[in-house]
Amino acid sequence: MSLDAVLSRIDETLPEALDRLFGLLRIPSISTDPAYRGDCARAADWLVQDLQSLGFEAAARPTPGHPMVVAHGGAGGPHLLFYGHYDVQPVDPLSLWHRDPFDPAIEETAKGKVIRARGSSDDKGQLMTFLEACRAWKAVHGALPCRLTILLEGEEESGSPSLVPFLKDNAEELSADLSLICDTGLFDSARPAITTMLRGLAKVEFTISAADRDLHSGMYGGLARNPIHVLTRILGRLHDDHGRVQVPGFYDDVDELPEAIRAQWQSLAFDHRTFLGDVGLSIPAGEDGRTPLEMIWSRPTAEVNGIWGGYTGAGFKTVLPAEAHAKVSFRLVSRQDPQKVLEAFRGWIAAQLPADCELAWAEPGGSQASVMEIANPAFEAARAALGEEWGRQAAFVGSGGSIPIAGYFKSILGMDAMLVGFGKDDDQIHSPNEKYDLESFHHGIRSWARILDRIAR
Amino acid sequence: MSLDAVLSRIDETLPEALDRLFGLLRIPSISTDPAYRGDCARAADWLVQDLQSLGFEAAARPTPGHPMVVAHGGAGGPHLLFYGHYDVQPVDPLSLWHRDPFDPAIEETAKGKVIRARGSSDDKGQLMTFLEACRAWKAVHGALPCRLTILLEGEEESGSPSLVPFLKDNAEELSADLSLICDTGLFDSARPAITTMLRGLAKVEFTISAADRDLHSGMYGGLARNPIHVLTRILGRLHDDHGRVQVPGFYDDVDELPEAIRAQWQSLAFDHRTFLGDVGLSIPAGEDGRTPLEMIWSRPTAEVNGIWGGYTGAGFKTVLPAEAHAKVSFRLVSRQDPQKVLEAFRGWIAAQLPADCELAWAEPGGSQASVMEIANPAFEAARAALGEEWGRQAAFVGSGGSIPIAGYFKSILGMDAMLVGFGKDDDQIHSPNEKYDLESFHHGIRSWARILDRIAR
Repeated sequence: MSLDAVLSRIDETLPEALDRLFGLLRIPSISTDPAYRGDCARAADWLVQDLQSLGFEAAARPTPGHPMVVAHGGAGGPHLLFYGHYDVQPVDPLSLWHRDPFDPAIEETAKGKVIRARGSSDDKGQLMTFLEACRAWKAVHGALPCRLTILLEGEEESGSPSLVPFLKDNAEELSADLSLICDTGLFDSARPAITTMLRGLAKVEFTISAADRDLHSGMYGGLARNPIHVLTRILGRLHDDHGRVQVPGFYDDVDELPEAIRAQWQSLAFDHRTFLGDVGLSIPAGEDGRTPLEMIWSRPTAEVNGIWGGYTGAGFKTVLPAEAHAKVSFRLVSRQDPQKVLEAFRGWIAAQLPADCELAWAEPGGSQASVMEIANPAFEAARAALGEEWGRQAAFVGSGGSIPIAGYFKSILGMDAMLVGFGKDDDQIHSPNEKYDLESFHHGIRSWARILDRIAR
Repeated sequence: MSLDAVLSRIDETLPEALDRLFGLLRIPSISTDPAYRGDCARAADWLVQDLQSLGFEAAARPTPGHPMVVAHGGAGGPHLLFYGHYDVQPVDPLSLWHRDPFDPAIEETAKGKVIRARGSSDDKGQLMTFLEACRAWKAVHGALPCRLTILLEGEEESGSPSLVPFLKDNAEELSADLSLICDTGLFDSARPAITTMLRGLAKVEFTISAADRDLHSGMYGGLARNPIHVLTRILGRLHDDHGRVQVPGFYDDVDELPEAIRAQWQSLAFDHRTFLGDVGLSIPAGEDGRTPLEMIWSRPTAEVNGIWGGYTGAGFKTVLPAEAHAKVSFRLVSRQDPQKVLEAFRGWIAAQLPADCELAWAEPGGSQASVMEIANPAFEAARAALGEEWGRQAAFVGSGGSIPIAGYFKSILGMDAMLVGFGKDDDQIHSPNEKYDLESFHHGIRSWARILDRIAR
């Protein structure tokens, strides 16, 4: 009965929960851009106050980058650590947003009501589902469901530079029986999912320079080296005609998918036509001979995320630029090591560099792929709880996204992680007009109440 | 004797001539950027007033773009038309300028005094050499040396969209016996030159788009098409391993250099080590088996002048962009037709476009290469005059730059063109810290006085 009371409480107080979420969404906490440093601090302080209002002992803990919000509360039962992140992606191109990304609103769409704002789905809306579940629980029971530690990061969208040192420095304080991570999605718009495989990430930016200044293409064209040509010639060979990455040794530490998992994925009947159709595409563009789910869940990738050089403004400028630049990232799987992959990539680029050119590297970073310990009984408990809330059995799925925290919790804190989230494929995270379905937010809060009820029992 | 008086007058009044040039250089007449439209009009008005002060009947004539300055003055002798342009290139990257590009100053350098400012060499400083020569002549003789028409364009750096219609609409008024064009350089820092070959230009901008929005490289990476990959893959094949442009039929209308010209160019003993060394390069990067002078004067090129796509800001964003863009230009020679070249290029790109991608084209434009009529006696007269002023025989040279006006004067007005200019290879035109040597300006004025003295005799 008490669970029903908590669920009713959640339903009755949804408007207030939305007001609170909107307050957090109004803070432009873009972690990758130094211009928003103050806003990241404001978002951290906002969360500290909200956690304190729930009876948590909470503080914004300084790091060399943006603060970590750490809170402790509750007692008894298993000790659970909940992780989410309060920072968001940049909003450019701003012109493609149909409203201010930081002025949240409920919008009616053909698919139902959505919360429109940068961070609504990734990850402010998701982390608030857990806090709201705790709030309702406390209102009904007068206490939190069990011993809880909350860890909210402010650098997830910018490579988490402070995360590992912070976990190491505070290992004892942060170690729990199990961590809950809310930064993933449903399998499809109605079927809940628990993510058990995550791809890793390796990223780096580089510059190819030739002449010591921009040159007039009339005076020098045909004689002087054009670094844009060098860049396109090299990056144009990043994949072969079969979609295979050409960096030497790239696939050395990549394992084939276990038959059991492959079979379960086939049973999911993933419809790539709909998945791609939702974003205006139709044809899988990855490795030959791989299924669409393999391409996004269990195969490594190399992607140029940004490229620039020469004159890119209005009109035309017949210039031979002095420099050309690119930002490249790799999604990693199995045992691929980020440092090893970046090293091989650097060597591969350098080996193709013609005379009179120079290379400069910046912003290297990365994290390994991780696979969850689904033997942990919490996974079956959560699967049952999610099934009750959504009316369909929860799927154990992979995720193409990189959530390094799961791997760090295991390697640094010796703690298993369970990833449960309520985002949808069409949430447009990292894109203009990001949204979070009102249904995701509402049933997400209810889902956590059910999961806590089963795990904390 | 009277020529000596004019030359002395030029020497005595150099400070006033510099003041006038600085006034013109302070106007940021960047024609390619709509934000500077008003400044282009101001530069035109400034020139109209200066020409009126020389007794010219002058006016800024409206066009769909920036105004044309047209002036008529003098009487008797041959009818000469002088052409220059008052618009300038954009100044980005502004951070690389060591002073405000539009706050001109005389600077002492290891190579002597220079006039530092955007447009000092291309082309405001050059066009003022002719106006100052006229001013000195008039001061000494009380009249201009012969019948003169002045045509100063404001769109040379942005493809001259209004030029052809204007020449056609005013053909009778603008037709003269010979046109003098001052937008070229010395052969080297001390040897004067008359340019007799000019490369043409074909330019176009295009966009490759895939998904209808930016995508999260974790969720979609490996499955969704990345337009930056498509762009680099195609542009990476623009040249083969021997530096030959791969667009089908590109070399069909390209003639080999006549032996006589080839011999004369060899006698120039062009030192490409110095030419490239001045900009931090050392190795010719053009077609195999071509001399450096051929590469820049008589061979066609394909250059990517700008490329952009995805996230190019501070930090990192693991995005699969919806679009990728490039600005590409071709330097043309012999009988190459700009429209034909652009058509072949569009076809070549389209043929390599994978499924799920779309192409959009913008800003096409171009002009044919041109070869001067050196049989015209004015060429020998100018060669002698320049030899007297600089103490070294003037060279007949080619130029890699595109000055379509020479071709239009011939095709539309049936008038030969003679290109004489005083720029130097290290003037950094189209680059940060553009300069014009004080020597170029001073001896340029004197050179025109000598040329007019011989031609107008």
